[in-house]
Amino acid sequence: MDFTEIESAQVVAKSFEAADDPRLRELLQGLVQHLHAYVRELRPSTAEWERAIAFLTATGQACTDTRQEFILLSDVLGVSMLVETINGADAHPGTTASTVLGPFHMTGSPRRELGDSIDDAGAGPLCVVEGRVVDTDGRPVPGATLDVWQADQHGFYDVQQPDLQPAGNGRGLFTADAEGRFRFRTATPSHYPIPTDGPVGELLLATGRHPYRPAHIHFLVDAPGHERLTTHVFVADSAYIDADAVFAVKQSLVREFVTVDDPEVAAAHGVAAPFTLARFDIVLARS
Amino acid sequence: MDFTEIESAQVVAKSFEAADDPRLRELLQGLVQHLHAYVRELRPSTAEWERAIAFLTATGQACTDTRQEFILLSDVLGVSMLVETINGADAHPGTTASTVLGPFHMTGSPRRELGDSIDDAGAGPLCVVEGRVVDTDGRPVPGATLDVWQADQHGFYDVQQPDLQPAGNGRGLFTADAEGRFRFRTATPSHYPIPTDGPVGELLLATGRHPYRPAHIHFLVDAPGHERLTTHVFVADSAYIDADAVFAVKQSLVREFVTVDDPEVAAAHGVAAPFTLARFDIVLARS
Repeated sequence: MDFTEIESAQVVAKSFEAADDPRLRELLQGLVQHLHAYVRELRPSTAEWERAIAFLTATGQACTDTRQEFILLSDVLGVSMLVETINGADAHPGTTASTVLGPFHMTGSPRRELGDSIDDAGAGPLCVVEGRVVDTDGRPVPGATLDVWQADQHGFYDVQQPDLQPAGNGRGLFTADAEGRFRFRTATPSHYPIPTDGPVGELLLATGRHPYRPAHIHFLVDAPGHERLTTHVFVADSAYIDADAVFAVKQSLVREFVTVDDPEVAAAHGVAAPFTLARFDIVLARS
Repeated sequence: MDFTEIESAQVVAKSFEAADDPRLRELLQGLVQHLHAYVRELRPSTAEWERAIAFLTATGQACTDTRQEFILLSDVLGVSMLVETINGADAHPGTTASTVLGPFHMTGSPRRELGDSIDDAGAGPLCVVEGRVVDTDGRPVPGATLDVWQADQHGFYDVQQPDLQPAGNGRGLFTADAEGRFRFRTATPSHYPIPTDGPVGELLLATGRHPYRPAHIHFLVDAPGHERLTTHVFVADSAYIDADAVFAVKQSLVREFVTVDDPEVAAAHGVAAPFTLARFDIVLARS
């Protein structure tokens, strides 16, 4: 029998019936149902389908060891944030909210000591970030690992500017102390545009969307016996705090980055005034 | 307000509200609705989402000038065939049915004279294909252009075997005569597997799906004042004629490829017996 519009999804879904892995089968059969429903509803022309194929191909080909354009696409379509929402804080009440990983996480952040600066260029406005990792009962999580990364004060990650920034600039792998405390110095982050020189940038331009993200610092927190947490801390008065291009802001992750002029407070933090101080405590779920 | 599972699709769709092009806005807002519905229903874990990102990235990176892995993915998910069905014969009653373009169409098939062979290697079992291009009133379409391409008798396209096959082998660009007639010689096509050495092949393997397509010859037919037709002629007794890996078989496109032993019939076709003869008439829609 011929392939028809009415039965297409059923016929193709059936072709996956013999898959050994039930979860893979479920994910693919569901994908077929939703993809075919999209085509039936929106009725793309052959030229529009060819344009979509060319766009997806270009997105894959824009990916390198230091750039993940498909994650960026998932981000601007809100899919990353939806997956995070389903798997993150909603699943673990009372913990710090999760948000997107983003396309610029690198495995192998440089290991640093508590209190060290991640601003290897040393040119940014001085900021101290400190906090404590605890569980949902408020008990400290000693030895928690915090992988942190951020764009510099001009809005670029190290991997975007290999000729201008030292590798590992704006990144650090820290281990919380016996009380679960952590602290590091950095350059106060800036809002910045996501990369606009690839297919995702073309998509935003073609649809009149701005590419900006509010200022933030990424955290990936791991501790034995606890669920991994992927999140950001956002700068409260940043531009675009209400219009993140990747929909990642959660109110509970926004913190005041306070300017401190008092030399005694500065000395207590091991820096000179003036500087910016932010506190971000982290609550992990036990696994 | 925080991004929530309930409102995610609405929030992201709204971000495309300012797009100047109303069709682009419609296609993207619809995509967001269906993608988010898929995520809400199937609830992929973060690891599953990462696997999907890696798969799509690898699919884009497997594409080259002579290989289009994203079309192949669209093909095995039945999306190509659904788009063709919506835009092809269903939209133009009384015409030859359309089917998928496939990943191996090359612009620039070698121009050949009517009656020429497209089997430049000259090693395949001899086949003559002939037919007539007419409109829906049965009037000939003189000067119609027929771009034809096929795998060789071992199941490989020229671009898959650049060291074994001359470029343009199995391809030809023909112009129908004043009566709309065309004819060419070729190697009788074989059933064959779609390429299994890339991400799409891994997907088929992981889900227990076979990669085979029944034997066929591709046609892309153009004529001034007529709608372009993308189709195949299928060999009636081919293996996999009822189980095409890309769902492209339509009963109206299946033809007997008849073995002819009669020397006089062979002489009338300008070849020696025995040979295989197939007739495929093509009906175009006027535009």
